[in-house]
Amino acid sequence: MSASSPRQQMILAAMSLFQREGYAAASWRRLVQESGAPWGSAYHYFPNGKEQLGVAAIECAAQNVAALMASCFPEGGRARDGIHKLFAVSGVQLAKSGFMAGCPISTVALETVPESQALSEACKKAFELWQETFADGLKRCGVAPESASALALTAIAAFQGALIQARGAQSREPLLQCASVIARLFPE
Amino acid sequence: MSASSPRQQMILAAMSLFQREGYAAASWRRLVQESGAPWGSAYHYFPNGKEQLGVAAIECAAQNVAALMASCFPEGGRARDGIHKLFAVSGVQLAKSGFMAGCPISTVALETVPESQALSEACKKAFELWQETFADGLKRCGVAPESASALALTAIAAFQGALIQARGAQSREPLLQCASVIARLFPE
Repeated sequence: MSASSPRQQMILAAMSLFQREGYAAASWRRLVQESGAPWGSAYHYFPNGKEQLGVAAIECAAQNVAALMASCFPEGGRARDGIHKLFAVSGVQLAKSGFMAGCPISTVALETVPESQALSEACKKAFELWQETFADGLKRCGVAPESASALALTAIAAFQGALIQARGAQSREPLLQCASVIARLFPE
Repeated sequence: MSASSPRQQMILAAMSLFQREGYAAASWRRLVQESGAPWGSAYHYFPNGKEQLGVAAIECAAQNVAALMASCFPEGGRARDGIHKLFAVSGVQLAKSGFMAGCPISTVALETVPESQALSEACKKAFELWQETFADGLKRCGVAPESASALALTAIAAFQGALIQARGAQSREPLLQCASVIARLFPE
């Protein structure tokens, strides 16, 4: 799947719109138009329309965020450094987008779970992937396996909430402050 | 303002719809219909329509959540107990709503900041009120004033994120696990 295939164009447009305005605001018409994909392709790749594209966008976003999380916790690194990196990198991205592009899944989850079964399933899987990826990263950094899962869940929740706070404040500051406090949960 | 005034009915309907589905999904028509308020009243109280009602709903929700936060941290209480209470009470509410009624402001913030100036301002003020209220609560429970603000911000972020995780999992478990970890940031 090349970056410029119509299918990929549509997924990228959906992720971006979901991040900025959420699922309800992103009409199928707008999704196709903003993607630049031909109408024929839109129906070819996503015959069931917006919900099907929504699932694909969530799956793609889940992988992107998981890759970022994994990269923050290299083998033998310090968990604290990983926390700071994740929050700081995301703060830079958020600021660069004019404080519009936060978590690509939070908004959709808050709008559609449990109403849409397909999107609910995709959001659940995404959050499970993140927790597993994050916990694996913590373990690589020496966190005890028995506490990694709850710590990962908490750090991810704080990360999602801090992205909301940063958007609300239109400032990276909440992300940086939050990272400093969450980092204290891990050894120096 | 009595609980059954048309203005209050509309604000309650808006808070509920924003919690369940967000701002974009809540059309003005649907807001008026679900509130049960007469159309004439709707335009009388909110001549500028949905955005004006949205601001009023966010202000009301901000006060409700702040009151819950304040009640969790009584003078001389333990900060840890307050954390557990806040997360547990909200978990019960979320479960009771079929995992639809989480934070009444997160979704709106993620959909409309910074695009709508009026809603951005209301969300910013709401988050500031929560941080101040939470920090005051922590101080009543003996947390050092110089660290109360960052701890409050982090606990609120974790709370908002845990509400998203709990909705995604359709389970109260993420809220309870998250509370246990956040509680560790405070003395036993």
